[in-house]
Amino acid sequence: MEFQYFLPTKLVFGKATINQIGIYAKQYGTKALVVTGKSSSKRSGALEKIVWSLEKEGVKPEIYDKVLPNPTFEEIENGARFAMEVSADVIIGVGGGSAMDTAKGIAFKMKNEGDLAEYFEGKKAQNAVPIILVPTTSGTGSEGNNIAVMTNPKTNVKKGFRNPSIYPKVSIIDPELMTTMPKRITAFTGMDAFFHALESYISLRCQPFTEMYSLKAMSLIAENLEDAYNNGDDIEKRSCMALASNLAGISIGLSGVSALHAMEHPLSSFFGANHGEGLCPIAVPFLKYIKPHIVKKLASLSTIFKINENLSEDEKAERVIEWISNIIYKLNLPQRLEYFGVNKEDLRILTKHVVEFLTHNLSTTPGNLNYEDIYKIYESAM
Amino acid sequence: MEFQYFLPTKLVFGKATINQIGIYAKQYGTKALVVTGKSSSKRSGALEKIVWSLEKEGVKPEIYDKVLPNPTFEEIENGARFAMEVSADVIIGVGGGSAMDTAKGIAFKMKNEGDLAEYFEGKKAQNAVPIILVPTTSGTGSEGNNIAVMTNPKTNVKKGFRNPSIYPKVSIIDPELMTTMPKRITAFTGMDAFFHALESYISLRCQPFTEMYSLKAMSLIAENLEDAYNNGDDIEKRSCMALASNLAGISIGLSGVSALHAMEHPLSSFFGANHGEGLCPIAVPFLKYIKPHIVKKLASLSTIFKINENLSEDEKAERVIEWISNIIYKLNLPQRLEYFGVNKEDLRILTKHVVEFLTHNLSTTPGNLNYEDIYKIYESAM
Repeated sequence: MEFQYFLPTKLVFGKATINQIGIYAKQYGTKALVVTGKSSSKRSGALEKIVWSLEKEGVKPEIYDKVLPNPTFEEIENGARFAMEVSADVIIGVGGGSAMDTAKGIAFKMKNEGDLAEYFEGKKAQNAVPIILVPTTSGTGSEGNNIAVMTNPKTNVKKGFRNPSIYPKVSIIDPELMTTMPKRITAFTGMDAFFHALESYISLRCQPFTEMYSLKAMSLIAENLEDAYNNGDDIEKRSCMALASNLAGISIGLSGVSALHAMEHPLSSFFGANHGEGLCPIAVPFLKYIKPHIVKKLASLSTIFKINENLSEDEKAERVIEWISNIIYKLNLPQRLEYFGVNKEDLRILTKHVVEFLTHNLSTTPGNLNYEDIYKIYESAM
Repeated sequence: MEFQYFLPTKLVFGKATINQIGIYAKQYGTKALVVTGKSSSKRSGALEKIVWSLEKEGVKPEIYDKVLPNPTFEEIENGARFAMEVSADVIIGVGGGSAMDTAKGIAFKMKNEGDLAEYFEGKKAQNAVPIILVPTTSGTGSEGNNIAVMTNPKTNVKKGFRNPSIYPKVSIIDPELMTTMPKRITAFTGMDAFFHALESYISLRCQPFTEMYSLKAMSLIAENLEDAYNNGDDIEKRSCMALASNLAGISIGLSGVSALHAMEHPLSSFFGANHGEGLCPIAVPFLKYIKPHIVKKLASLSTIFKINENLSEDEKAERVIEWISNIIYKLNLPQRLEYFGVNKEDLRILTKHVVEFLTHNLSTTPGNLNYEDIYKIYESAM
């Protein structure tokens, strides 16, 4: 048993905790840049509450609401330029993964000159500006780790950037902000959280803490996602999903994701897929393909999904995959790659992209997958 | 669901990880004070390995091996004076709870003038000198929290001091160092870890993270403590106990202990009891007494202890207490207070002490215990 555990972020979890954000922000200065998208933080009321709390505590808010899905280096650089113009002391990211990761990128870029691509390659980084994150979806879990997923517009490579400097100082997880999430977003972000948990659980880097977190996250999702989808106002269900997403986010920060996430990334960068939606058609073929290597792990999940205890290990593993297939169906999520306009002739490009640029995710995936394996999985997802 | 989670410590877990300590220490300066007791860090070989690793990385070690069980303010002040004389940049605590807590106290005292008692009362504190901890027992879990248990020699009050400044920067948990732990110490430190887990689980401040940690810790202890006791060389068993102790230590840092720990503290300060031993005779009467308030929680542990599923909740709770009573017996730990020389006429003094000085532990204990309750529990432990 050998592992490391590190999470220097203070997690503040609970209904209405958003109203305390000013108290935390003022520890880092008097000017805060609030990084968000066009709509979700307004719809949820998060933005209004944040501005109120910041002003109450004497912190001047500047709003930067230009976040787009799947943020690029360029968008992050633009944000950082704005942040420096307004001399922001602290960066507050509010929204889903794109908003939170843009905030991380901006805070990093403010202290680190030069091309972002170089830092992906290991260039030594300075500290970042302090970061506070506020998720308004329950999917990405970015508030619980030091990963910022960004797309390099030159290469179309979408990849997670990891750096110790971009752990949020504080993450405020207020499930009330999630009650206004539309059904479709509840569904695909919930499945993103589920796959974070599952992938870090089967990861070759799984360790005792992430094992606990992943199991708890999957159990919470199994019990609450459908209800949160069908009855979005239920604060208890939303709380459970928010916790699941947070736990799964911490898990991937420590144990990584797998080839499933790697295979989704080019769907987003080439076909504009929503990340959580993009995972769904690949998941079942992926799990079936690597099942021989993870049969014990899959079978161990059977109690979470209330699968009959008297089955063989292999049958239990089968049923777990079936459960996943069913929930994708029940949540009206895409089951085939054609949903994104992918044609058979695109598969070689997607496969090449994974094998060329996302080897780190393959290296933690059981089964030692190569080009042919990835191609076959994509093919089964058509 | 409302809670906070914060643990800024890097945990480095695994066999032979002690050899990396110099790499971590040099991040904080060139002079390290190694705080330890007379024997355990020498017996385990920890001290020798630490000195080797520090010197290899260009950090000069100074040894302070004057730690005694149940450290007092005075002992901590003496240590801090020595640390300042040698201009230590980082304080390394190696040993059981007393050594680690003395190290925390020294690091704190170096940056905070005046009487330690005032800081217990809430005097505003500055940062402490960076702390690195190395447990050589699996009981206290002090490497996973910001608590330092100290005794005020004027009042004989033994109490946990909490301050954000005394989170260790790094904790190195090397189970190999625990293979030389004598049977008796394995037993009572193991039960200390068990009660940390159980008490934070039943605590009114229990939250989702500490619930996970406590359950995992109890499960690891149920599966491994007896084997670690009977076969101390087994590195796998030692690893499981080290992890359990660490998880339980994090749990009490976040959710606190209960009246059981409060009732043990005066046994240590008045009767010189070893903390882990002192808990044992009180535990069963305590749990029986508050059982009506925690029957669901106790019953929920029945699977951990492999208790028949078809029993009623109340019967399951009974059996869980029985399991605890049995393990205390099997590990040859004290079952009656008379073991420590406590007489019936001492009980009023002990009770008064708990009610007067340790109210914070009572406030997190289900059942709203008062003087009479505490007295009755002590009485049943005679």
